[in-house]
Amino acid sequence: MTDKPSPLEGALAAADGAFEQSLDRLFTLLRIPSISTDPANNEDVQRAAECVHDQLAELGFGVTTHTTPGHPMVVARWDNAAAPGPRVLFYGHYDVQPVDPLDLWNRDPFEPAIETRGDGTKKIVARGAADDKGQIMTFIEACRACIEATGTLPVPVTILFEGEEESGSPSLPGFLDAHAGDLKADVALVCDTNMWDAKTPAITTRLRGLMGVELVIKAADKDLHSGLFGGPARNPAHVLASIIADLRDENGRITLPGFYDGVSEVADEVMASWDALGCSSDAFLGAVGLSVPAGESDRSALEQMWSRPTLEVNGMTAGYTGQGFKTVLPAQASAKISCRLVKGQDPEAIWQSFQSFVNERLPADCTAEFHPHGKSPGIELDTSGPAFQAAKQALTDEWPNAAAFTGIGGSIPIVGQFQELLGLDSVLVGFGVDDDQIHSPNEKYELESYRKGIRSWVRILHAMEGAA
Amino acid sequence: MTDKPSPLEGALAAADGAFEQSLDRLFTLLRIPSISTDPANNEDVQRAAECVHDQLAELGFGVTTHTTPGHPMVVARWDNAAAPGPRVLFYGHYDVQPVDPLDLWNRDPFEPAIETRGDGTKKIVARGAADDKGQIMTFIEACRACIEATGTLPVPVTILFEGEEESGSPSLPGFLDAHAGDLKADVALVCDTNMWDAKTPAITTRLRGLMGVELVIKAADKDLHSGLFGGPARNPAHVLASIIADLRDENGRITLPGFYDGVSEVADEVMASWDALGCSSDAFLGAVGLSVPAGESDRSALEQMWSRPTLEVNGMTAGYTGQGFKTVLPAQASAKISCRLVKGQDPEAIWQSFQSFVNERLPADCTAEFHPHGKSPGIELDTSGPAFQAAKQALTDEWPNAAAFTGIGGSIPIVGQFQELLGLDSVLVGFGVDDDQIHSPNEKYELESYRKGIRSWVRILHAMEGAA
Repeated sequence: MTDKPSPLEGALAAADGAFEQSLDRLFTLLRIPSISTDPANNEDVQRAAECVHDQLAELGFGVTTHTTPGHPMVVARWDNAAAPGPRVLFYGHYDVQPVDPLDLWNRDPFEPAIETRGDGTKKIVARGAADDKGQIMTFIEACRACIEATGTLPVPVTILFEGEEESGSPSLPGFLDAHAGDLKADVALVCDTNMWDAKTPAITTRLRGLMGVELVIKAADKDLHSGLFGGPARNPAHVLASIIADLRDENGRITLPGFYDGVSEVADEVMASWDALGCSSDAFLGAVGLSVPAGESDRSALEQMWSRPTLEVNGMTAGYTGQGFKTVLPAQASAKISCRLVKGQDPEAIWQSFQSFVNERLPADCTAEFHPHGKSPGIELDTSGPAFQAAKQALTDEWPNAAAFTGIGGSIPIVGQFQELLGLDSVLVGFGVDDDQIHSPNEKYELESYRKGIRSWVRILHAMEGAA
Repeated sequence: MTDKPSPLEGALAAADGAFEQSLDRLFTLLRIPSISTDPANNEDVQRAAECVHDQLAELGFGVTTHTTPGHPMVVARWDNAAAPGPRVLFYGHYDVQPVDPLDLWNRDPFEPAIETRGDGTKKIVARGAADDKGQIMTFIEACRACIEATGTLPVPVTILFEGEEESGSPSLPGFLDAHAGDLKADVALVCDTNMWDAKTPAITTRLRGLMGVELVIKAADKDLHSGLFGGPARNPAHVLASIIADLRDENGRITLPGFYDGVSEVADEVMASWDALGCSSDAFLGAVGLSVPAGESDRSALEQMWSRPTLEVNGMTAGYTGQGFKTVLPAQASAKISCRLVKGQDPEAIWQSFQSFVNERLPADCTAEFHPHGKSPGIELDTSGPAFQAAKQALTDEWPNAAAFTGIGGSIPIVGQFQELLGLDSVLVGFGVDDDQIHSPNEKYELESYRKGIRSWVRILHAMEGAA
């Protein structure tokens, strides 16, 4: 006679036992072409909302599908009188990216299949497999396993699924604001990120913000004949080039006054944990045809991406750019420039500093226009709290390697919105890997990501007990 | 009883007496829409060739219209056994620019008319009035007046009219090469330029050459996500901007090694003559919305345009340049750059120096491509010869102000081709003024340019006697 399994062991066993059906339910969702940017797919997006609504209702969640000016928000709620807290708010999205160019797909993007590769690994191939249907289904299936094993969830859970993430989430801030009371929770769980690698789970705790600006420098009132005016007339392309050149010093540091104000050095133990990940600049850059790190010369690629701000020209144009040649002196030159910001930097101060920097360098006869394109601060989540530590341990228990606290170079707007509108920190856990081809043809999700992702959430939900 | 008039006086009187008919003959030519770039006008271009052919034949020239792969060349020859030399070769073109946009024309561009402006000045308004039909008719009518007055021309004359000038003269070099013997002469007269101003005739003696290059700098093998790679990955837009910034020093001098090799300082007396023209940088730049001279800080606008080389970005592009923002790191950045060259500079040496300059500044992981777009030397004609001095005096005799030796910032390819293929220097005399709107809607030619232009050529032809 064996001991009765613990609720966790029971739930893990339930997850394993039902894995084939879990896959069937994921495939049902993947077959719905819920492309949120294309109005031709509006009914499909609606059907995807109904699909997740129905799955949650079947499990016993109290589910409401809210209409918005765009696509629906599905809110599901599980109350557990026996385990009053902490309440977790889980977020994901059921919409997907467009599939163009279709001719680069090896199969119909909405006919999911499991492909076995030459190395024996299995992949779930479909649009949305990794972003984000596979990821949200890991959580639904984890809830299913817990409920099957014990009749309830270890902690109270609220789930929020949106259908506009791939369209920039236009309805989300207003919805969060209007439903802040319904969505009240103690910690947020967000499943839309990657692992460090296929064996090393990760919690993303640093996200960079953005300050974008389109700079337009104007001189003469029209394009000029360079034979006539070349020399005596100010050429704004040269002015722009000089300003851009001035923005970095020879060591790759950004020269905007005050740019690094508030930027902290990474704590030694965090840096040691990053070093332990063994990220090689060679591999990172080699994947895109580069070999020598640029940027701040005394910082590793990983350190730059996760903990350092940067400033990059994203686009630049002046004068004649068609085929052949026109010997004009351009009337104007412009550049789209964006800064990735880290916690501590003030986007507004950098916006102001950039304008001063340019204006101080404008020669006579030139004017500068500054068109803003976003100002969001960098985020660094406090990993010392019990939810982060509990999630980290739960992930470490499930995967071959210990979980890492990682960063991403870009932004995830929901994290800032949860902080600002709901007062909630997000624990960002996801099971994607770098080569999942999200937003590209032949998107896939590792079968192992799905299987162990479900088991990971089972562990995290149990670990959350008492981790408020 | 008065003295018999001199041949010159007789020819000037004949020109004045027949001015109304001269205008009629010009209008006949102006009514033909000989747009050489549009195949729909091929028959019109042919008709324009026939029109000038017939006028010259009627005067007694020996005329041959040569077919070419493009539009015809009209060659007319006058031999004067009594005045064996020097032989002059006159060049002009009977084709015109397209007329788009037609809605900006105040009248049908091929229904010429004389308009009297508020200040009492009269303008011949039509496409081609100034460029170049009005100008070539000044010469034909001058020949007519000389022949009427004396039965012959004071010097032997060969005339070459082409119909492809506005299409880049594709047939011209081959034609000059094949007919070098027929076209043998002692000096060339070219009528396709402007006066200094409406009262001051000019002989253009300096033309700048061109070295054009499209520079393409490549780094990663595709556009990158700036959130992921911003910082560690080399951004070719920044590399390009730094190279362009390096190409000039703080005084506006071009920093390419050897760029100024062979460039001569303008002789004091020439500089004095330019100063005497009273060109104000304020007026020159004010016309295009600028006020402060850029370029070499110790050189006037006129000196820069006529006697100094320059280097300008004509176009520049990198990354995303559409509406809104994409936070990419561009895979490549490119610029179209051209140098205006003066006599003494070696275009090939500058082409090589440019490539070295760029390659020395390329950081790791970047490659540079150089696509050539022309290498032609600057030209400075020797004004000390008798033809230049004779023409200058003849113009000074006709106009209110003394004639000036001037430059233009651009190139006139025929001048280099006459030097190279026929061994001939060109005396560039024209009666256009700056606001003639050539290549634009409402092109016009001053009625006074036409009248005094005819008289000017009468004087020059007579002055050429013995000016070999």
